[in-house]
Order: sequence, then C-alpha cells, then structure tokens
Amino acid sequence: MKASFYLGEQRIETGVCTPVPPGPGQVQIRVSHVGICGTDLHIVHGKMDHRVTFPQILGHETSGVIAATGEGVSGWREGDRVTVMPLDPCGQCPACRAGHSHICQKLKFIGIDAPGALQSYWTVPAHTLHRLPESLPLDLGALIEPIAVACHDVRLGEVRAGEFAVVQGAGPIGTLVALVAAQRGARVLVTEVNPHRVEMARSLGLDAVDPREVDVVEAVNERTGGAGADVVFEVSGSQAGSDLMTQIAKVRGRIVVVAIFAAKPQVDLFRFFWRELRLCGARVYEHEDFEEAIALAASGRLPLEQLVTERRPIEEVAAAVERLEGGGAVMKILIRCED
Amino acid sequence: MKASFYLGEQRIETGVCTPVPPGPGQVQIRVSHVGICGTDLHIVHGKMDHRVTFPQILGHETSGVIAATGEGVSGWREGDRVTVMPLDPCGQCPACRAGHSHICQKLKFIGIDAPGALQSYWTVPAHTLHRLPESLPLDLGALIEPIAVACHDVRLGEVRAGEFAVVQGAGPIGTLVALVAAQRGARVLVTEVNPHRVEMARSLGLDAVDPREVDVVEAVNERTGGAGADVVFEVSGSQAGSDLMTQIAKVRGRIVVVAIFAAKPQVDLFRFFWRELRLCGARVYEHEDFEEAIALAASGRLPLEQLVTERRPIEEVAAAVERLEGGGAVMKILIRCED
Repeated sequence: MKASFYLGEQRIETGVCTPVPPGPGQVQIRVSHVGICGTDLHIVHGKMDHRVTFPQILGHETSGVIAATGEGVSGWREGDRVTVMPLDPCGQCPACRAGHSHICQKLKFIGIDAPGALQSYWTVPAHTLHRLPESLPLDLGALIEPIAVACHDVRLGEVRAGEFAVVQGAGPIGTLVALVAAQRGARVLVTEVNPHRVEMARSLGLDAVDPREVDVVEAVNERTGGAGADVVFEVSGSQAGSDLMTQIAKVRGRIVVVAIFAAKPQVDLFRFFWRELRLCGARVYEHEDFEEAIALAASGRLPLEQLVTERRPIEEVAAAVERLEGGGAVMKILIRCED
Repeated sequence: MKASFYLGEQRIETGVCTPVPPGPGQVQIRVSHVGICGTDLHIVHGKMDHRVTFPQILGHETSGVIAATGEGVSGWREGDRVTVMPLDPCGQCPACRAGHSHICQKLKFIGIDAPGALQSYWTVPAHTLHRLPESLPLDLGALIEPIAVACHDVRLGEVRAGEFAVVQGAGPIGTLVALVAAQRGARVLVTEVNPHRVEMARSLGLDAVDPREVDVVEAVNERTGGAGADVVFEVSGSQAGSDLMTQIAKVRGRIVVVAIFAAKPQVDLFRFFWRELRLCGARVYEHEDFEEAIALAASGRLPLEQLVTERRPIEEVAAAVERLEGGGAVMKILIRCED
C-alpha cells in the first residue's frame, strides 16, 4: 500500500509499506481523506524534530472506513465510517487523573509521536474513534478534527448567543473558530493581515478587517457601545495579536489563546489587572468536542465545501505542503489516500 | 483640624483644613487610623500625577466613627464604627451596567481621584460604608481594606480547601493573600526575594522561600506529586514572577495577576496553550469581599497585630513613607488621625 513519509530536512516522499494488522484494542482504518494541517508544516520545517523519529508518516485529520478490528474491540465493525481523535494519553499522570487526559503530561499525539494517517491503511487504538453519520460525505469527515479544535476553543471561551467575539487570524483554525462562534449566536469580527484570507472570510459571510488598515479598537467599540469584545480568540501567534487582544477585550472579557507562540510575546498584564480580564489557553479537544463537531458538520450549517480549496492524491503531499506555504487563496487541502 | 497633604514632587506636609460637612447621601467620619499603602508610595513618586490634582489628601485604608450624616442617609448614625470601601463608580458605563461597578470604566478611587482619609474628619458617600463589629479593635479596622483586596484575589482564584497555592511576593498584599488562602484550607508556599519579608512570612507561620536560593519549580513539584500548583498569585510585578508563574502552575491551573505591572513583561503564552492555563486579573474588591474581610478580621484568625509594625501620628506621614521605601523589617504602618 502507499504511504507518505517525512524523511527529515524538509523532505517528503510517497512510498510503499505494509499495512499494520490491528493488535488488541486496535482498529485498522481504510483511509479515505487526510487534511494537511499547520502543524504538519511545522514538522516539515524541522521545528518538531525533537519529537519526530524518521521516517515518520504524518497526518491526523482523517476520515475512513474500518477495514479490520483487533482482539477485544467492541462496538465497532468492518465498514463503519469513522474519524479519529488522535490523542493517546498515559492515563496515569496528575492531569489524566484530574480528568484532563486530552492534555496529559505525557500525551502522545498520533501523527506526530506515532505514525499518522497519510497511508492507505492506518491502525489506531479503538478509543480514538468517532462515528461519522451517513449524511456527511466521507471526504468532509477529514475536516472533523479541525472543527473539533474550533468547538473546543469556543467552548472554553464560553461564547453565548448575542455576545461579540473577535477572532485574530483567519487561517483554517481561526476561520472555523469564527464560524463555530457564529453558529453559537455570537456576532463575530475577524482580523487578518493576509488579503486572500480576508477575502475568503468575507466570502464565507464573516465580518473581516485588516488590522493594518482599520483601527480595530475603534471598530470594536463602535460595534459594542464602547464596552469592548466579550471574547477574543488569539489565533495569530504574533506580538501584534498579543497587543491587540488586551486592547479590545471588555471589562471581565475572556481571551482564548489558540495560537502556538514560537516566542514569548510581551503581554499587557496591567490591562489584565485594570479590567479584570481572563485568559485561558486551549489545546486540541476532548471527546465532547468531536461529537459537537460531527453534529455541526452533519447539520450542513458550516460551509465545508468552500473551505476545501484543493483535493490531491497521496503522491502530491509534498506539492500540497509547498502550495500551503506559498500562501495565496488556499485554505484546506485534502489528500486522497484510497489505494 | 489636621490633614496630610501631598503637594507633588514627592513632598508631603501636614497642615490644617476645615472639615467638609456631609452633603446629601454623604457621611462625615471622625477618622481613627489610616494605613499607608503601596499605591500611596506610587503616588508620592509622581507615578500617578496624571490622575492626582494638588494639593491632595491621600489615604484609603481607614477606620473611624461616624460624626455626622447628610440628608437622605438611612441606616447609619453618629457613633457607628465604620470602614470605607473607597470606590465611587459612575453607574452608567458598560462595566457598571454588567454588574462590575468595582471596575467601572470611569471609576473614581477615593483617596486618589478625590480627597482621602489622612485627615481628622473625612466626608464620603454613605454607599462606601461597612460596619465594624465591636469585637474588632478600631485601629485594626484600618486593615480591612487590604484584607478585602486579599479576599477578592483569593475568591477570583477560586481557592478550595486542600489545594496548593503559591504566592509570588510577600509585601502586605501578598502576605494577606497567603494568610487568607491558608484560612480557606489551602497549603501555601510564598516566594519572596527580600530576606526581611521571608522572615516575616515565616514568623506568621507561612512556608516561604527565596526563589534565587531555591528551585521553586522543584519545590512545587515535590509538594504536589509532580502536578504543579493549583493556583498562583503573581504579586511581584516582575519579569521573574511572570516567568515563574507559568512554570509552576499545574495543567488547567489558575494564575491571578494581583501586581500592578509598570512594564509589559514577556509571558509564555505557549505554556498557556500547552497546559490550558487560566489567568485572571484581580483589582480592588466588591462589597462581599469587605464583608468577608470584616468577618475574618473579627474572628481573630488573622495575625493582624503582627502585621502592624509601626503606629505614627499624622504629623509623621512623610517619615512613614520614607520608612516604607527604605525596606527592611517593616510591613504595615498605621497613622493615627484623631484630632
């Protein structure tokens, strides 16, 4: 069968390998589609070489059909349409014992710390599976993982109907956060410096501005009667984003840090004191976020087809990565993995 | 009557002035004692000259007895023993309308934006009053305001019995936060670089270390089975404190920013993402914090006498400020204001 291997030093090659039969508690999936994620780009850039062993099969945004089940697996059978929550927690650490296994202190992320989905057959623990309803086209099931990220972010942001939310950064995750927050009944403003992404956000019906062209503080005050934003999602990972988030949040407003900051930004902690702002980090998802993401995707209320800007065969993973890095009018690329 | 005036340019002088009779909704207090606060030192250093008009009477940590009541004041009468919550919110702004009048967007802080308590007779709005029980010596009533700050901080930190809390900085507020958290049943570790304050914290029964001598991350992990602190109070206002707070908080741990940061520190937002940390700013107090502070002080469970390291007459406010700035074995100085 085919698989796409990351070889280190920014090299990706498609080759062949032998399917791994499912062991006890495992399930083998015939992979349909896999989305390429910003994290995959980070890995290919060598930013996570300390975690990745070579050659490694990447990919963690998946849809597929169960091909075989291992010993002791119940509730799943061949032919079931599934997606995967690619987390493998230790179950023993203080975080797991406190009920936060999704951010286990020794978390294995499948697709980074263990082989990922960019192969025709993928074997994973059965506890990672979520069922995809018939009403959701199988290829779009590969979008459930990033939608679950957005559902987790919006849930931790405690977004309520009628609230005003600002999403700083309109890449795939920021855009999904904005769409999910809007589904919760929030009014949403997106800030984004890439003109292609501003255009894309607008084409999805979102209110979007370039913070270099528009005074965002003024824009937020105008839209909130001078109160400020109820909730701000920081998805840009930039110093400018760190500066803006504290300027636009209302008294007792909430800030959700979604971005992965490569460097420590300066943060206006005085403003946190002055307005009693609240901030929380949000990482990956929990099972309930996957369930919410599946229900939302299946409802047809998210413009998923518009988010998928390209579909490519598994031989073109390297080209897809290059395309994503080139910027421009690209959002989500799905890789077809069927044999 | 006597009053202590801040004249600008670091000059404080005691002089005479005429008592202000209470207008409608106001009460005139015969002031007993006033505590000198870190904010007063900031003002005297000219850091808040943009807010203060000269000459200004400072002081906002007070105890006293009602001398006269203005028109329309009910529930209060001459001779009542009181303390003052020195906040005068506008009642109109979005924060006030949302129920957060203590951090009103146009908040007047009495003692900074309006004349304070360092005078023999002080006239304030009746809505600022809280009754002091007979069981609390009147001079110690001047400690209620900083205790209320600590109660607010601990309440926003959602400290529960059995939790492990770290308090970064053991000045008067940090020390009170540690004592109040301990009263809530938390295990508390205090970090402080001033050896006098480390000693004082220890003499109050607190576990205290100097972070330049002890590996605090290791100390916290040892005390929490590798989990980290449930809650961290950042009261140091330093880059070192900003660095430490994210290192010692457990997965989903809470950080409360109590300190007034003069500059924007670098903050490890990656760690917020990675551990889903939560941070909130905590400023001043609400009426319920004053009530809790009064009950706690009256219960005798706080070592208040030990916290008062000096008592001085109103003629010595300038000397008291100098003493506090000199550091050393000084914590709270109370000024006697009786005529």
